[in-house]
Amino acid sequence: MSECGKLIVVSGPSGAGKSTVISRVMEQDKSVVFSVSATTRKPREGECEGVDYFFIDTQHFRKMIENGELLEYAQYVDNYYGTPKAPVLDNLEKGLSVLFDVEVQGAMQIKSLCPEAILIFVIPSEFSEIEKRLHARGTDSEEKISQRIKTAKYEYSFAMEYDYIVLNDMPDTAADEIKSIITAEKCRAVNRKKYLTEVCSL
Amino acid sequence: MSECGKLIVVSGPSGAGKSTVISRVMEQDKSVVFSVSATTRKPREGECEGVDYFFIDTQHFRKMIENGELLEYAQYVDNYYGTPKAPVLDNLEKGLSVLFDVEVQGAMQIKSLCPEAILIFVIPSEFSEIEKRLHARGTDSEEKISQRIKTAKYEYSFAMEYDYIVLNDMPDTAADEIKSIITAEKCRAVNRKKYLTEVCSL
Repeated sequence: MSECGKLIVVSGPSGAGKSTVISRVMEQDKSVVFSVSATTRKPREGECEGVDYFFIDTQHFRKMIENGELLEYAQYVDNYYGTPKAPVLDNLEKGLSVLFDVEVQGAMQIKSLCPEAILIFVIPSEFSEIEKRLHARGTDSEEKISQRIKTAKYEYSFAMEYDYIVLNDMPDTAADEIKSIITAEKCRAVNRKKYLTEVCSL
Repeated sequence: MSECGKLIVVSGPSGAGKSTVISRVMEQDKSVVFSVSATTRKPREGECEGVDYFFIDTQHFRKMIENGELLEYAQYVDNYYGTPKAPVLDNLEKGLSVLFDVEVQGAMQIKSLCPEAILIFVIPSEFSEIEKRLHARGTDSEEKISQRIKTAKYEYSFAMEYDYIVLNDMPDTAADEIKSIITAEKCRAVNRKKYLTEVCSL
């Protein structure tokens, strides 16, 4: 039985392990399509064009802003991140849910544009874990790590704007929580009115 | 990590297959305790005292009403059904969630007493299935089945008062939906504020 597609917005500070969790959700729930963001940041090792991100330059990104081709965009550390509008609309029309991996600013933009979007904030249960993971990643300078931690604290101050907080101590448990949220949201009475019509019109 | 206990109220018309679904949930989610109702109706084959219901007589039931020992009660067809208060409070104090299998009237009473209770309405995706299941059960007279169908239609008119509608075409899928709802509700931002305190107080 086809059910309505949802906008699922997942944010979380750098080092929360969000990407791993999202990959597991995408592998396991085929009713959800990942919204590939555009970014001006350099690809990390193993990241693929069109799968993880559309990697574009700043000039191209600014052009997309000007042309209104982005659903939301944000500047984070030194780079731009944004969501191309067209593929999102295509998927919703097909009845698929679309999952967004966006920064706090982007999440707030999506919420104000689409109040029915489901906002999920991913964090480890202990803040110190973020610092640990950023160091373990080994891709950033000490200065950049400090900046990311400062940004993380800023991002935490938006947590209560989200509908859900998912705890990522174990990626499988966190992925299960996100899948449960998606399932539960489909069960909301307001989304299942059509199953009552037959009786209530009697 | 212990999380807060919830009140989970499950209702559904006779023939919706609610009891089977609830049994599966109880088997699989050990953080949830079943609230055993008291009833004046006769036990069905296989039902056990203190497990499925406390089977009591009408005089005893009326005494419990008088003494304020019931969280909610309702009269349904010819019988009384109600929820003894004490075990619910005990379990919540232990941090366990309590699942109630109650009729629509009972659910509305719990909602007005505890607005934070999670209300779930269980139905098959086609109303005709209810009629089919009531006949297949073979425990009721034709007259009683007609009465149950009339009651079911009345109960459907309350469906939008519930938070969630779970579709029971396959008991395992329906049980998964209920377990997802319980997990998702634990993830609500408001229930996970404590994981932010460390950072937001910095």
